[in-house]
Parts: sequence; C-alpha cells; structure tokens
Amino acid sequence: MASSISNYLKLAEQFKQITHLKNIEALIHWDAEVNLPPGSAPSRHQEIGTLSETIHKLQTADNLASLLQAVQQEYEHLDQWQEANLDLIQKTYAHAKCIDPNLQAAYSIATSECVFEWKKAREENDFKALTPSLNHVFDLARQIAHAKADHFGKDPYDMMLDLYDPDRTTEEIQKVYDVLKAALPKLLEQVMEKQKKEQLIPLSEPIDEPTQEAIGLRIIESMGFDLSKGRLDKSAHPFCTGTNDDVRLTTRYNPHDFISGLYAIIHETGHGLYQQYLPHRHRDQPVGQAKGMAFHESQSLIMERQAAGSQEFTRFLSRILHDEFGLKGPEYTAENLYKLITRVKPSLIRIAADEVTYPLHVILRFEIEKAMIKDNLKAEDIPQLWNEKMQSYLGITPPNDSDGCMQDIHWPSGAFGYFPAYTNGAIIASMLMRRAKEQNFLISDQLCVGKFTALNDYLDTHLRYFGCLQHSTDLLYSSTGEKEINPNVFLDYLQRKYLGTLK
Amino acid sequence: MASSISNYLKLAEQFKQITHLKNIEALIHWDAEVNLPPGSAPSRHQEIGTLSETIHKLQTADNLASLLQAVQQEYEHLDQWQEANLDLIQKTYAHAKCIDPNLQAAYSIATSECVFEWKKAREENDFKALTPSLNHVFDLARQIAHAKADHFGKDPYDMMLDLYDPDRTTEEIQKVYDVLKAALPKLLEQVMEKQKKEQLIPLSEPIDEPTQEAIGLRIIESMGFDLSKGRLDKSAHPFCTGTNDDVRLTTRYNPHDFISGLYAIIHETGHGLYQQYLPHRHRDQPVGQAKGMAFHESQSLIMERQAAGSQEFTRFLSRILHDEFGLKGPEYTAENLYKLITRVKPSLIRIAADEVTYPLHVILRFEIEKAMIKDNLKAEDIPQLWNEKMQSYLGITPPNDSDGCMQDIHWPSGAFGYFPAYTNGAIIASMLMRRAKEQNFLISDQLCVGKFTALNDYLDTHLRYFGCLQHSTDLLYSSTGEKEINPNVFLDYLQRKYLGTLK
Repeated sequence: MASSISNYLKLAEQFKQITHLKNIEALIHWDAEVNLPPGSAPSRHQEIGTLSETIHKLQTADNLASLLQAVQQEYEHLDQWQEANLDLIQKTYAHAKCIDPNLQAAYSIATSECVFEWKKAREENDFKALTPSLNHVFDLARQIAHAKADHFGKDPYDMMLDLYDPDRTTEEIQKVYDVLKAALPKLLEQVMEKQKKEQLIPLSEPIDEPTQEAIGLRIIESMGFDLSKGRLDKSAHPFCTGTNDDVRLTTRYNPHDFISGLYAIIHETGHGLYQQYLPHRHRDQPVGQAKGMAFHESQSLIMERQAAGSQEFTRFLSRILHDEFGLKGPEYTAENLYKLITRVKPSLIRIAADEVTYPLHVILRFEIEKAMIKDNLKAEDIPQLWNEKMQSYLGITPPNDSDGCMQDIHWPSGAFGYFPAYTNGAIIASMLMRRAKEQNFLISDQLCVGKFTALNDYLDTHLRYFGCLQHSTDLLYSSTGEKEINPNVFLDYLQRKYLGTLK
Repeated sequence: MASSISNYLKLAEQFKQITHLKNIEALIHWDAEVNLPPGSAPSRHQEIGTLSETIHKLQTADNLASLLQAVQQEYEHLDQWQEANLDLIQKTYAHAKCIDPNLQAAYSIATSECVFEWKKAREENDFKALTPSLNHVFDLARQIAHAKADHFGKDPYDMMLDLYDPDRTTEEIQKVYDVLKAALPKLLEQVMEKQKKEQLIPLSEPIDEPTQEAIGLRIIESMGFDLSKGRLDKSAHPFCTGTNDDVRLTTRYNPHDFISGLYAIIHETGHGLYQQYLPHRHRDQPVGQAKGMAFHESQSLIMERQAAGSQEFTRFLSRILHDEFGLKGPEYTAENLYKLITRVKPSLIRIAADEVTYPLHVILRFEIEKAMIKDNLKAEDIPQLWNEKMQSYLGITPPNDSDGCMQDIHWPSGAFGYFPAYTNGAIIASMLMRRAKEQNFLISDQLCVGKFTALNDYLDTHLRYFGCLQHSTDLLYSSTGEKEINPNVFLDYLQRKYLGTLK
C-alpha cells in the first residue's frame, strides 16, 4: 500500500541527497582554507564549481515541479516538521526557478571574476581597476533582485536580505538602525571618555601556539562543544563550517595577543554549538538547518560577547590561565582581562571592531548596498560615499580604499544583504541573554566557574532544537519574548556594560 | 557551424564533471583518514555514499547511450588521445551497464556491512562470525563477475582483474606466478642463510615526529615531488590519494623505527609522482588518469625498492642523516642502513613483508580468490586453505585468523582481483629500472647524491606522460621493451640484490 505521504517522502529523499552534497561542499571549502597547497587552487576552484552546479541541478530538477504539485494533496497528513520542511523546499525552488538560468550562470562567473579582481585591486589599492567588474556584478545582482521582487511582489532589497535572514524586511531594519544611529555616536564618545581614565596592563609575554591551542580547547570543552564531532584548526581568518555532525572550527594565533585568537575560538564555538544542537532527527532536511545568518550570528555573539565577554567569565579565565597554564603576571587578573576585552576605539576595519562601533560599520554598508540595489548607485560613487559616512559615523577617514570600501569580500562575491545579519545577530544575542537570565538565575553564577550548562539548556530548548521549524518572527518571540528586533535591549546592554561601574 | 566532433565534446564535458566529482570524492576519503572526528564517521559514511551514487548516475546517465551512438560518426575526426578517451568511456559505460542496478546496489550495501563485520570479527579473532556476510559478498561478486563474463565473452576472474590492471588475464598471471612459486622458496632459504652471518646494528635512539617529518620532506623534495601541489600528513596506514593537481601523501611515525615511516613516504611519493606527471592537458578526462593499479604500484615500488632501496641511495641517506639531522651513530652508516632495509624474513602480515616474501603472500591470495570466483569456494573453507598455503610457501602457520585470513580489508570490501597488482607492480618496477638504466647510465650515480632527475625523465617520457593512451601491453612494451610481465627480470634483480656481494 502506498503511503499517504509517498510524494513527500520522495521529495525528502531527494533533499536528503542535496543536504549530503552540501555537507561535502562545506568540507571541501574547509579543506581549501586549512589544507590546500598553493598550486592546487585553480583546479580545486573548478572542482568546487562542478559540485555547486551539480547541487543546483538537483535543486531545480525537472521532476521537482510535478512532485511539488502532487505533494499538495498530502498536506493534511504531514506533521508540523514535514509541513515546515515542505514550505522551505517550495520556497527554495521558487527562488531558484524565478531566475533565468543564463542570468544565474552569468552571476556565478561574474562574481568569481570580481573576487579575483578584488584581491589584486585591494593589494594594489586600486579601486578604479575594480569598478568595471564590480559594476557588472551590481548590474546582475539588480537584475536578480528585481526578477525575484516581481515574482514574489516584494521589495528587491528584501529579496536579498531574505537569503541571509529569512523574512526580515528593509523597513524593519531601517527602523532599528535609525535608533542605533541616533544613540551610538554619543555612547561611543562617553565610553571613550570613561576608558581614557582607566589603567590597563597590555599583554607582553609571547604565548606559543601549542599553549594557545590548549587554552582554546580547554574553553571549547567547558562551553559544551562535542569535540568527538568536531575539531579545531588554523586558517588565515577564523571561521566555522563543516556539517552538523562534524563541525570544523578555525582560528589564528598571534603570539603577542592570545585574546584575539581565543575570542575568535569562542565566537566560532558559538556557531558550532548551534550546528551541533540543531534537531538531530531532521539533520538531513532543510528544516533541520540553522535559521539564517542573523540567528547564527546571535549564537556566536552570545558566547563571545555576552557570556565570555562578561566579568563573570573573566574570573574563570583568569583562574585557569593562572592554575592550569602558569600565566601569573598582573596582565592576567580578571579585572585586567575584562578591560582588555572591552576596549573600545573607532577603527577602519569592520572585522576588528569592538561591539560598540561594529553596528556603525554595518549601517554604512547597509545604506550603500540598499542604494545600489534600489537606486542604481554605481561602483565609482562608493569610495567618496564610504569615506564621508566613516567620518560622519566614526569620526575617521580611511587613508586608502584597501582599508576602506575594498576591505570586504562580500560585494565582489555577490553577497548583498548579508551585512545586516551581523548587527541583527548582535541585537538578538542581547535579547536572548536578557531573557535567558530572567528565566534562569544560575547563568551568571555558572559563568564564574566556566560552566555553560544553564545557558546551553536555554538556547537548546528555545532556539537550537527548533531548526527552521518556525517563521523568524515566531522563533524570535519564543526565544526572546519579543516579535521584532529591539535595538533598545542592545543599547541598554552596552550602556550597562560600558558605562556602568565594575562590579 | 557545428564542430565535426560536437558529440565527442559533449561527452568529454560530461566526463570532465565526473572527474571533478571523483577528485572531490578522493579528497573526502583523505579527510576521513586524516581529520575525521571519531563521532562523525556514521554521517560521513552516508554523505560519501550519496556522492558515489551521484557519480555512478552520471556515468550511466540516460543520455550517454545516444551520445555514444552519435559519436561513432566522429571517429575519423578524433586525434589519438580523443580516440583512446572515447574507448575508455565506452568501456566504463559497458562495464557499468551490464550489471543490473539492483545487483550493484546490493553489492554496495553488502560490502559496507561486511567491512563493518570484518572489523569486529578481526578484533575478536572470530572468523565464524564473519562467514555469513563474507559468503554473501562472495555470492554477489560471483554474480557480477559472471554477468560481465557473459557480456564480454571472457573469463569471470579476468573481469575482476581488469578493474585494477586493465586487460591482464588470469592465464598470463598464472604463468608468471608459476615461475615465482618455483623459484622463491629456494631463493628465500639462500637469502636467510646468507643474512644469518651478517652483523647488523639495530636502530635504538628514538627520533621524534617533527624530525622524522623533516627527513621525509627532505627526501620528498629530492625525489622531484612538487610540494606546492601536494602535502604530507599522518594517518593510521600510509596512502596516497587526492587529485593529479593536489596529491595527498600520508605516513605514520614510529619513534624507534624511522625507516618504516620514511620508506612508506618514499613509496607514496612514487605514487604521487605518477599522479603529478600524468598528461596535464588531459587531467579532466579518463585518458589522463593512471593506467591501473599494477602500473601505479610499479611507480611506488620503483622508488621504494629499486631506487631508494639501493646501496647508492643509502649512501646519500646516511650523509644527510649525519650532516643535516645530526644522526651520527654507527647504525646510520650507509652499509648498516642498507642491511636494515634489505632484511628478509617470512612473516604473517603481507603489508609488513619484505620484497622476497611479498609475492608469496600475493600468490596465496590470488589462488584463493580465483577459486572463489571460478570454483565456488566458500568462506568457511578459507582458514584451513590459508594456513596450509602459508606453511607450504613461507614455512609459518598463523596462530590465529586475525593475523591470517582476516588481515586484509580487500575481500570484505569487495576488491577481488586487486592483490595481483602488488606483485605485478613489483615485477614491472624491476623491468622498468633495468630498461631505464640501460638507456641512461647516470641513474645510479645520481642516486648516490640523492638526485632523481634521470630516473624521473625516463619515467615521465616512457610511462607517466602516456596516461591511459595505450593498451597495457603497448605501454609495457614502450616502457620496458617487453610485451609481457617477465618474472625472470624480477628474480634476477632479487638474486643480484640479496645474494650478490656488497659493492
């Protein structure tokens, strides 16, 4: 007897295979960053291209249209996970299918070429050399955004945002950023004024790589990350990838600043914990994956900034550095470590920014890419606009475009709509931590002794276990108690952390 | 205007994609041996299964039949490489298509399960527990061999051999092994008698891993391997995989026996050099790949045994150990190193065997698996047969099946017809070296100073550059001057090396 959901099961089988191949793709990307011999890059690039194309073909296979049609009759027999999974599959299919395959292929080639040009142009600080290929990417990105907007009857920039933070709208983000833009410059000024008076002992003693790695692994384990299903390696830039059953974390080590390497590990472990504790039964299906990049970033930042960036945690950190790693100098006291990790200073580079100035880097990019998609802004207009905004929001002007508008790979690689996820994630992290602490008073006490179980329990049961079961709004509500991203919770957190007095 | 070979080009495009995905598969296998966290194995197993299935589907895609039909009209316009490539594609397709997909799928599941059972049974030394699943694999292997034999009108065991050593026949191998079987036991006795009288200083001083790795990399470079397109890592068992543009070598290090790790590196580097110097223009096509496992093994063994296993090379090795690595004890003299690497002793385990006894391990397996495919030999009859043959050929009887008939993964994993490639490769290596030295007298002199250029030049121009362009017989002829595998060249080499006097 045929199952009453036989078409759904066929569909799920097809998407299981897609998930498997995507997992392999993630591993190959990891390998490219961690292991790739320099001369092997060109051939690997082609091989990865073929794998991506193979996955894309499966996602838009001819049989999917009729299968998706047939499965409509089975809705009443599906449980809530299957229903959410089907909705996701339909959405992915609709997104893929409303773009002309030639346009999609042209975009893939254009972004590959633009990334290549960008690396050269950035090295040579020559933005002009980048403009033709960047304008070409812009042009194709606009075509894609508008084709999707027409098809779904939505705003074209919303369609870009949706790729990284499902269902978030330009309007909502604009409202949030208006609040931040109004408050952050004043807060920044106050924090810097306050920090001027503070005494701070810089790190001096060099710490070798094996020791830094051992400290990192000690912290990773205390955070509850399962090292039997993941590993830590080195790469030029820290990242987290792999599969939900094989999470690969990376960091880099600076002998004179172990904090930057360690907090990168903590950040990536936050991402890794999200992946490890996604709903296991659904690991092979779209519904079992992470709910977009904003939620993902909330999971890394709640660990890096909210938990490990707290006075409580620095007490634990100071103690193990002293007891277990023999680091006994005055620079390793809890108080001094806390001062080091909460240092605020406007700077040119987004990825090196502290949490007070970071949102201003994002807002600047949001405004520029929105204008590019919606108002036909041209590449050649970016450098001036960038520098003006940097001066206006952060009070500094980049001395060159390499450290200015050419610092990020996102635009050359075609990742428009990605940047807001960083700041939306930071805000969600503050909302999550407020809520979690309201519900479990043990969280702060546990951090003093390096325990993360209460925090992990909260995140597991209110966020991680849900995967993509819920709409973003519902997931936000069930995990934070609010339906929209609330910048005031974030500002309140910064205010207390950076302008309050040390406990 | 349509190209006169447009169908061929379409076919080549499809096989380029297949090659790319196979390259990714090789990398994922490398990752599984080198990096895989223990808890991630089950999910990776499924992901690799999906990738293999995806590749298999592309190799047997519906459009191939008509494309292969259409391309027949284009033969006259193809160059010799294209023609050979087309023949290979047709052959692969015919091999894949003559097997019922259900039988193929059942075989894949049965071998997976049997490998799992084998690991357990080997640990517990319980051959009986393995027999049901091994008989199941045997049964399916026989069905596949006979289906192919019927389709191609050939011997069923030939069809198995063909997978690892194209076009080699059971008859040819039988003739070769008859010669070896008649000569080796006597030779072995003489060698052991001679070595009894030799003084030998065992290795004692432990050598740490970083030093062993540095020695390995020094030798790898002197061998002409391009480390900008490859790397060296650790794994439980040494192997070589990856792609022709990204060759991954592995070894393992024993602090008290640097020779075993180093000679494993040299062996794998021989495989790696073959991959790196395959015809570059054809790297994405079947014709650009290695000519089967026997030739592949000839490339590893010509380096490990013929070149680095020579008195000339041990002079160089002794000098760099002394000058560059500060290893100055009497155990590191050229003469003592040579004695250590040429030590002969019958032993239970094939992979640890010396080059005099190794062929006897292979002949034993050849006889048993041939009887399994052709004469319905049952799994339960293997232990007794194995032990009798061990006693008869090598004069020792395994104390248990784990170190006897359960030592290899080949049969549980369904690799029937593979074993002969090891010994055929050893014989080809001796034929190649003889010929190469006839044509270039510099080879031996260069080895004294760690130079491999003359040997590499010979192998590049007479073997590696040809990929799969030629029939096995023709490749053997053009590279060794003989059309058949000649056991006497190998016996002659052993005789001189092991019974001659030291120079």
